[in-house]
Amino acid sequence: MGVVMQKVDRANPAVIDGLGRAGVATVHEAQGRTGCFQSYMRPIYTGAQIAGTAVTISAPPGDNWMIHVAIEQLKHGDILVLAPTSPCDNGYFGDLLATSAMARGCRGLVIDAGVRDIKDLTQMGFPVWSKAISAQGTVKETIGSVNVPVVCAGQNVEPGDIIVADDDGVCVVRRAAAEDVLTKAEERLAAEEAKRQRLASGELGLDIYGMRERLAEKGLKYI
Amino acid sequence: MGVVMQKVDRANPAVIDGLGRAGVATVHEAQGRTGCFQSYMRPIYTGAQIAGTAVTISAPPGDNWMIHVAIEQLKHGDILVLAPTSPCDNGYFGDLLATSAMARGCRGLVIDAGVRDIKDLTQMGFPVWSKAISAQGTVKETIGSVNVPVVCAGQNVEPGDIIVADDDGVCVVRRAAAEDVLTKAEERLAAEEAKRQRLASGELGLDIYGMRERLAEKGLKYI
Amino acid sequence: MGVVMQKVDRANPAVIDGLGRAGVATVHEAQGRTGCFQSYMRPIYTGAQIAGTAVTISAPPGDNWMIHVAIEQLKHGDILVLAPTSPCDNGYFGDLLATSAMARGCRGLVIDAGVRDIKDLTQMGFPVWSKAISAQGTVKETIGSVNVPVVCAGQNVEPGDIIVADDDGVCVVRRAAAEDVLTKAEERLAAEEAKRQRLASGELGLDIYGMRERLAEKGLKYI
Amino acid sequence: MGVVMQKVDRANPAVIDGLGRAGVATVHEAQGRTGCFQSYMRPIYTGAQIAGTAVTISAPPGDNWMIHVAIEQLKHGDILVLAPTSPCDNGYFGDLLATSAMARGCRGLVIDAGVRDIKDLTQMGFPVWSKAISAQGTVKETIGSVNVPVVCAGQNVEPGDIIVADDDGVCVVRRAAAEDVLTKAEERLAAEEAKRQRLASGELGLDIYGMRERLAEKGLKYI
Amino acid sequence: MGVVMQKVDRANPAVIDGLGRAGVATVHEAQGRTGCFQSYMRPIYTGAQIAGTAVTISAPPGDNWMIHVAIEQLKHGDILVLAPTSPCDNGYFGDLLATSAMARGCRGLVIDAGVRDIKDLTQMGFPVWSKAISAQGTVKETIGSVNVPVVCAGQNVEPGDIIVADDDGVCVVRRAAAEDVLTKAEERLAAEEAKRQRLASGELGLDIYGMRERLAEKGLKYI
Amino acid sequence: MGVVMQKVDRANPAVIDGLGRAGVATVHEAQGRTGCFQSYMRPIYTGAQIAGTAVTISAPPGDNWMIHVAIEQLKHGDILVLAPTSPCDNGYFGDLLATSAMARGCRGLVIDAGVRDIKDLTQMGFPVWSKAISAQGTVKETIGSVNVPVVCAGQNVEPGDIIVADDDGVCVVRRAAAEDVLTKAEERLAAEEAKRQRLASGELGLDIYGMRERLAEKGLKYI
Repeated sequence: MGVVMQKVDRANPAVIDGLGRAGVATVHEAQGRTGCFQSYMRPIYTGAQIAGTAVTISAPPGDNWMIHVAIEQLKHGDILVLAPTSPCDNGYFGDLLATSAMARGCRGLVIDAGVRDIKDLTQMGFPVWSKAISAQGTVKETIGSVNVPVVCAGQNVEPGDIIVADDDGVCVVRRAAAEDVLTKAEERLAAEEAKRQRLASGELGLDIYGMRERLAEKGLKYI
Repeated sequence: MGVVMQKVDRANPAVIDGLGRAGVATVHEAQGRTGCFQSYMRPIYTGAQIAGTAVTISAPPGDNWMIHVAIEQLKHGDILVLAPTSPCDNGYFGDLLATSAMARGCRGLVIDAGVRDIKDLTQMGFPVWSKAISAQGTVKETIGSVNVPVVCAGQNVEPGDIIVADDDGVCVVRRAAAEDVLTKAEERLAAEEAKRQRLASGELGLDIYGMRERLAEKGLKYI
Repeated sequence: MGVVMQKVDRANPAVIDGLGRAGVATVHEAQGRTGCFQSYMRPIYTGAQIAGTAVTISAPPGDNWMIHVAIEQLKHGDILVLAPTSPCDNGYFGDLLATSAMARGCRGLVIDAGVRDIKDLTQMGFPVWSKAISAQGTVKETIGSVNVPVVCAGQNVEPGDIIVADDDGVCVVRRAAAEDVLTKAEERLAAEEAKRQRLASGELGLDIYGMRERLAEKGLKYI
Repeated sequence: MGVVMQKVDRANPAVIDGLGRAGVATVHEAQGRTGCFQSYMRPIYTGAQIAGTAVTISAPPGDNWMIHVAIEQLKHGDILVLAPTSPCDNGYFGDLLATSAMARGCRGLVIDAGVRDIKDLTQMGFPVWSKAISAQGTVKETIGSVNVPVVCAGQNVEPGDIIVADDDGVCVVRRAAAEDVLTKAEERLAAEEAKRQRLASGELGLDIYGMRERLAEKGLKYI
Repeated sequence: MGVVMQKVDRANPAVIDGLGRAGVATVHEAQGRTGCFQSYMRPIYTGAQIAGTAVTISAPPGDNWMIHVAIEQLKHGDILVLAPTSPCDNGYFGDLLATSAMARGCRGLVIDAGVRDIKDLTQMGFPVWSKAISAQGTVKETIGSVNVPVVCAGQNVEPGDIIVADDDGVCVVRRAAAEDVLTKAEERLAAEEAKRQRLASGELGLDIYGMRERLAEKGLKYI
Repeated sequence: MGVVMQKVDRANPAVIDGLGRAGVATVHEAQGRTGCFQSYMRPIYTGAQIAGTAVTISAPPGDNWMIHVAIEQLKHGDILVLAPTSPCDNGYFGDLLATSAMARGCRGLVIDAGVRDIKDLTQMGFPVWSKAISAQGTVKETIGSVNVPVVCAGQNVEPGDIIVADDDGVCVVRRAAAEDVLTKAEERLAAEEAKRQRLASGELGLDIYGMRERLAEKGLKYI
């Protein structure tokens, strides 16, 4: 405890941006239905869709000191990922910290705890995915760590991993897998477009995907 | 398990539409304060207000195969109602399934589990009431049933029952009672309008409803 | 049980309005990080920011009779604060009660239970902070009390205390402390403005707040 | 609302007792993995294992009046099943009601709400499966119904259905299916005994159930 | 914040002990169905039944420093009551603190957070009612207060109030009301004994309490 | 997805057993207050205290097929650790699987989901720490993985890590750190013993730990 890892390897920015365009649901499928954060992580406003490199924070309950430390480690395009060392819904983050993070090029915050100054953050266009919204502030008394692996909302996140977040939630992509995942995500999107048109015309998934035979084998009865 | 009931009796479309106009809170009162789904069922966007015939789905946790089967059973004006056989917050439903359901005339989805592709569904105007929003997808390995009675968010729903849903939540009306409930709902709406004007003018409910005597009998003391 | 305290001492209206402008997060900090309601209390629509004098209601689960009694006790600028005597998510309050409360000058409702008629309340501009949204109505059979101390969402509220509520949640300020809290809140707002500009220019909180030395003393290591 | 159905058809007592001996997990499997109540329903003490005919109660939140009404409807071997009309954790039931119910031959209580007098109930040997333990009492002001269908902890229960309850939870068996379910449950128990001995000797389920080939087909890789 | 009130007025020890013998459910009824803590407060072992004077602790999330401060304020027969300033389930208290508290005559702990060393506490016979059991420890960095009013699990507790706790949960009695509540509690216990015997003989509550007429007036129908 | 890593490096058995004797709370402190699973993980019966090597299972919701695969990978002294790929409370594990696991030398199960056959498992002395107890069974249709890293109840677990579990919950120790953690744990236990005797004699923690000065510096006021 109490370390700041200053070196973070980052994926290719073009790959990161591509993952952001693909969105959480597609990226998660593209990597074998893995990486989704738990569903209680919700955006503070709708419509944001981002991807960026994780700068991770392990912080004590009710103590946001390490966010200041983490902001110094940010590079343009990064996303802060905060996991408290035990469950806490305090408002760790508000408009002043967002101002500072934006000045360093930060794209957003993913926090398995609370956030506040919702109205300001919305006006600033700084997106946050959080477990809670809470005006209850924190102290600055106990140190934690920056850029160590953390478990955030059920997913292990290594510094340098790619975070994708949109209205559907949050997903993590391993840095080493990012390019491969992007390729598969783009293939999925292309394939979905063709299916969408067939479905929109009234064709059934049962027929498009050829499911009828296998359903019968499993024993499905029509009455 | 593993049956699809292909015949569903539906109520009079005009009655169904009338229930939709009355809205959940009024319909629930009109039928004796019954039929409300649990309050964790929330719309993915505000402003939708619908009613339709329930086409029910009983599905295993993490498996959305039966939705494809159910879509074939939809008729214009129906609403899909999905209950997992044990609690699950996976995203069973997204924009492709919505495209298919809309092509069949479906008015919306009520699901005691998760949904994804929120941004797309909102843009398409396909309303969903769900327990969760989750990008976490599902598999297609285990069969369930379509158009069997299900318990969804605390209410028993029979195929053919009428589902009413709006920003206040979701309510079920038994098919056989639909006409009577609509009559009572419309009476309530008419009676409320008169009360609203008296209350807006500053008159008190204590006086309009004649409550003062009964409160005193119950022992209420003013100090 | 079963009393209505008709006399409520209220703070200076200008002080109350000042607290409303300062907002929940700032007021809570200004009074030593105290007074925040639990974070499950959420506004039914975003953007409202109010302060007012608490008129409190202690009500049985599933019984909203006392709201009618409380409305008679409202003065212009008051806020209704309802705490059920045991956990309940029923929709105690809807558009008719809001019409009546608005006619009496009420600024909003804070309820550790459910509310309904969300669409109407939003159109009327009557803000509510609640634990739940639920169409499930209540009865009028059992009395409670009005203007007695209540515990609402984890905070003790005395009638006459000031309630501040916005998108970040709800906070209570003791009546006797209101003026002092407002002074401190306004000092905080002024101080924050200077810091915001420095942070926006890229200066770090680590430097502005002089944290580096104390972090080192606590043992933080940079690697 | 407000009815007492006095006639309840009951299954063969020997079948009911057989289901009780088989226990919840086995009965639930024997009827196709259906009928389990949600897992928050826990026994107030361990070791009880019962089955009996459901006498159902639909009660308002915080009001236990209908339990007195239901006790009159009890026959020897019955189990009370109470579902509140909206979520409530009040202690609806304690030692006096248990004394009365036991005097009428009642085998236990299943309640999707709270219970109290835990120490007394344990000493009396009156088993209860509940959502909560709470000393918070209830009123007797609002009527409900007895022996109507209720949804209790996620399952629809008709009066006359068989309830099975043990340390694993609670399960409902439709009255018409009871005999068939018992037969299948007893077959399962017999089959399990043989498997248990093979597993205890160190044989693997992979081999006993012949799973290796199908796992390989699904794509499982050993590394 | 950051005060220790060293003077606590305590009720008559004989009254306190009498309340402990009456138990939570009876005491709560005797004072008008008020004072129960929320039902998530559970004992770490069954069978303990205590009453004592509240020595209160307001502590930050994840920081148990103030417990050491509070132990110095304990007198024989007191009960520690800890409320964190925001929700936290950390294990604030274990066998060393229990050893210290017992040496000062403390009868138990009521904590709206977590506790650990369950096995040791059980062997020592030191009862705890808590929200959680958690091995996750705390720090000693931030001060709080001792013997100030706190809201613990939904109830306001003043230092010097009487806490009653048993297998049904926890209840608070105002110091000034203690003697009156005890009198009413003992009357209830005496009255219950007579009723218990009539109920055990098979007489119905419907008849003993004369409920039939009022049920009919409310509209209950027997079918 | 769909891999079984057959090689697991295990720590020194004597070290593992030493960690088991130290218990969860001590081990967690010895490694810097890290490694605790979330507090909802509770033992199915009290009194068990174990440590062993993690054999990990990543399983789909409602599908326990991989447990059979994992049992083949068990060595004497191992502990099964199952994490579903999304939240699920089904009963994945019962007496037959426990019989098989015990026959392979397994010391227990830690499962972020449900378990059943509680009475049998208790009689067999096979300890389980779980999120839920549920009779609701699972299917065997979809593969997962064995001995891959999993996030279980908020902690990342690598195959070969040491799991410590007792009445306080569950903790993970990295394999490489096990020996060092044991040394520190044993030092803590020795140090605690001396403190326990001083506290039992009535000495205060305030004095033993020399806290008074630092409390005063932080601003604590005695009144």
